[in-house]
Amino acid sequence: MSSLNPVELIVRKREGGSLTPEEIRTFVNLYTAGEIPDYQVSAFLMAAFIKGLDDAETAALTDSMLFSGSVLDLSDVPGTKVDKHSTGGVGDKVSLILAPIVAACGVPVPMISGRGLGHTGGTLDKLESIPGFRVDLDIPAYRRQLADIGVVMIGQTAEIAPADRKLYALRDVTGTVEFIPFISASIMSKKLAEGIDALVLDVKTGRGAFMKTEAQSRRLAETLVGIGLRFGKPTVALLTRMDVPLGRAIGNWPEVAESVACLRGEQVDDLMEVTLALAGEMIWLGGQANSPEEGIARARASIDSGEAMAKFIELVRVQGGDAALVESGANHPDAHEAYVVRAPDHARGVVTDIDALALGHLSVALGAGRIRKEDPVDPAAGIVLHVKPGEAIEAGQPLAEVFTADRTNLPGFASSVLAAFRFGDERPQLQSLIVDRFTADGWMNL
Amino acid sequence: MSSLNPVELIVRKREGGSLTPEEIRTFVNLYTAGEIPDYQVSAFLMAAFIKGLDDAETAALTDSMLFSGSVLDLSDVPGTKVDKHSTGGVGDKVSLILAPIVAACGVPVPMISGRGLGHTGGTLDKLESIPGFRVDLDIPAYRRQLADIGVVMIGQTAEIAPADRKLYALRDVTGTVEFIPFISASIMSKKLAEGIDALVLDVKTGRGAFMKTEAQSRRLAETLVGIGLRFGKPTVALLTRMDVPLGRAIGNWPEVAESVACLRGEQVDDLMEVTLALAGEMIWLGGQANSPEEGIARARASIDSGEAMAKFIELVRVQGGDAALVESGANHPDAHEAYVVRAPDHARGVVTDIDALALGHLSVALGAGRIRKEDPVDPAAGIVLHVKPGEAIEAGQPLAEVFTADRTNLPGFASSVLAAFRFGDERPQLQSLIVDRFTADGWMNL
Repeated sequence: MSSLNPVELIVRKREGGSLTPEEIRTFVNLYTAGEIPDYQVSAFLMAAFIKGLDDAETAALTDSMLFSGSVLDLSDVPGTKVDKHSTGGVGDKVSLILAPIVAACGVPVPMISGRGLGHTGGTLDKLESIPGFRVDLDIPAYRRQLADIGVVMIGQTAEIAPADRKLYALRDVTGTVEFIPFISASIMSKKLAEGIDALVLDVKTGRGAFMKTEAQSRRLAETLVGIGLRFGKPTVALLTRMDVPLGRAIGNWPEVAESVACLRGEQVDDLMEVTLALAGEMIWLGGQANSPEEGIARARASIDSGEAMAKFIELVRVQGGDAALVESGANHPDAHEAYVVRAPDHARGVVTDIDALALGHLSVALGAGRIRKEDPVDPAAGIVLHVKPGEAIEAGQPLAEVFTADRTNLPGFASSVLAAFRFGDERPQLQSLIVDRFTADGWMNL
Repeated sequence: MSSLNPVELIVRKREGGSLTPEEIRTFVNLYTAGEIPDYQVSAFLMAAFIKGLDDAETAALTDSMLFSGSVLDLSDVPGTKVDKHSTGGVGDKVSLILAPIVAACGVPVPMISGRGLGHTGGTLDKLESIPGFRVDLDIPAYRRQLADIGVVMIGQTAEIAPADRKLYALRDVTGTVEFIPFISASIMSKKLAEGIDALVLDVKTGRGAFMKTEAQSRRLAETLVGIGLRFGKPTVALLTRMDVPLGRAIGNWPEVAESVACLRGEQVDDLMEVTLALAGEMIWLGGQANSPEEGIARARASIDSGEAMAKFIELVRVQGGDAALVESGANHPDAHEAYVVRAPDHARGVVTDIDALALGHLSVALGAGRIRKEDPVDPAAGIVLHVKPGEAIEAGQPLAEVFTADRTNLPGFASSVLAAFRFGDERPQLQSLIVDRFTADGWMNL
């Protein structure tokens, strides 16, 4: 290993050349071991960002980050373990509804999630808004719970992909974050370390998504699926629209409450369209349905029968959360008084659009999200929409409720909410949120 | 200054944007002050290397490096102070001959030089091969000597362009060395700090040069002159050929001995063509001739009159060197026995070519140069060519002498020398070494 010349590799990438898988592995291993300094790695990251990494290099990067830590083997847990990863959106509480549905259908779901950052929320923050809920299970407890109840939802542990943590911290301060091969290797190294047998990806596209163009989102989906397949894991990506917040709630406890409502059978069309599509794929990949469509039917049945809700309550209870509070539908203990934002006098007709990105940023200002990793979040802060695009409104009608500890800025927050709405006379053409589907066979071109 | 966001600047450059002069200055100042870490600067250097720096950015970089340390004011020393800088070649001892010539013609020469690195030699190493010669004069002594005898040759002091030293050390380990704006800013910040009024540049082109194509060498010349002019200093660049070693000697003391011979009037055609051309420019820029051609005539006269040689001896004596040894033409005290490399039996006709790059690398192996900055050099090691391209040879005739402490490897060194020669039946067309000349008026297109 010590014969590797970092400058030679940096210069080769600078000139647009390729590194061998062995060179990438050695470079990452030496960096993780502290034997190559940050300043050489950041020069390499920038050269790779500008000149590109090919599929083999991206796979080698994933591989070296994956094997920088523990790679869990869950083969002693019966069943085909399937997880889902989303590239992040606004109001995206899909995991909370999806995981119990899929587990209730007999597919074990070992889910290791992240926290929210910037305008997008994170599953861990949502779970932690349930008083008592613990996401810091160790690996033996994670494994035991998966075997016992078929679903477990925790945060990244120190054992998982330490090279990814070190590289991400460096990318964050050197302007090398938004690069599909790095993003893909980071996501996939963590997911592959979980011990899954198959993976479903929800790749967002639209103004509230991390990727700013549909072409970039498609490339990200292709890269993620390509890595999964290289590692022998059946992987499916759905490309889903993220222009408007998903569902009605934005913020941690508000999203838990909405998830519970959905698990009880409430119809939140856009949210359930995405959730069921992903659940169908997972149930199919997990061998509990002969097609994704059949998987969707099974998912619906698990809601109708109450099994999905029961599974969620079981998950909350086992991970230490206040299951009675969740079941009761009561307010959060730290709830803020709702501030109602109403349609202005001139507004009439229908809601034509709601800007997800604007409300994502606003939710951070309300205290529901964070700018920096170390910032705390307020579990009870957020926004609940009373209307969604396509719905008729009248002047003065409630458009949304805002929840925050920062009451002095409420008038400003309210006008930000209002600014995110568009009104018109004509009902907008509502499109399916499922834009396309990518698998080993390519794009389905829906 | 503290409001600058390094990541924002890195990302802007990564996307091909420009930085304002103020942003570049702040970035360099914060880096020099230790307030921006190496890993952010190396990411920026790589982004700039790949995406480019425009003239204004390059000037701002030069400026910030220049003013990171002392900028000498030599206005109390009478006369127009002119220096020369060469981009580095093999056998390039021009400074040793040129500086005393120009000083003898009444133009003060304040010269701060560097050490050899890789296949090219450095003026400081050559001067230090003269027993006793000191290149570590402080600034008051430098100024006093220039006023006293009109010429001073020293090494870079800690006061001069500390930002350049810090940035160069980082470039060296991050694959960001060979980039014309960085090279130019590094050269010019040091030269402009010397207190010069005008500057002549010897930009090498050819296989023994740092720049590998003539187009790159021309761009380097244009960038260097452009910076000089922006700083209000008349600047001229000569583009000179560096395919074959300059003169006959390669190595520190061997090059001193050859320089003395030239100052005594010996005709070494290629070496003196370049030396006189540069001297003519300097004498003209220094106001002691009405044209470069008249400057050349004055330079020749200073050799013929013995004044140039006397000036060199004076320089050696004042800087502590063994002037008697230099004058006597005796061997170096640590001289090695010469190992004669002879023409092989099949060789006949004329020498058609000698590979400067190959002999430059060989001279390092002999001990005359260094790979890393901290390596020591052997003052007496080197190569002396007995024939040059265009000269007739016979089988068995001496081609070169090799001097080294490493006698066990002499057969290998000898075959390396031989491999650098090409022989043929036809006398090669010998071209002028002066390829072109660049000034404020553009290329002369010689």
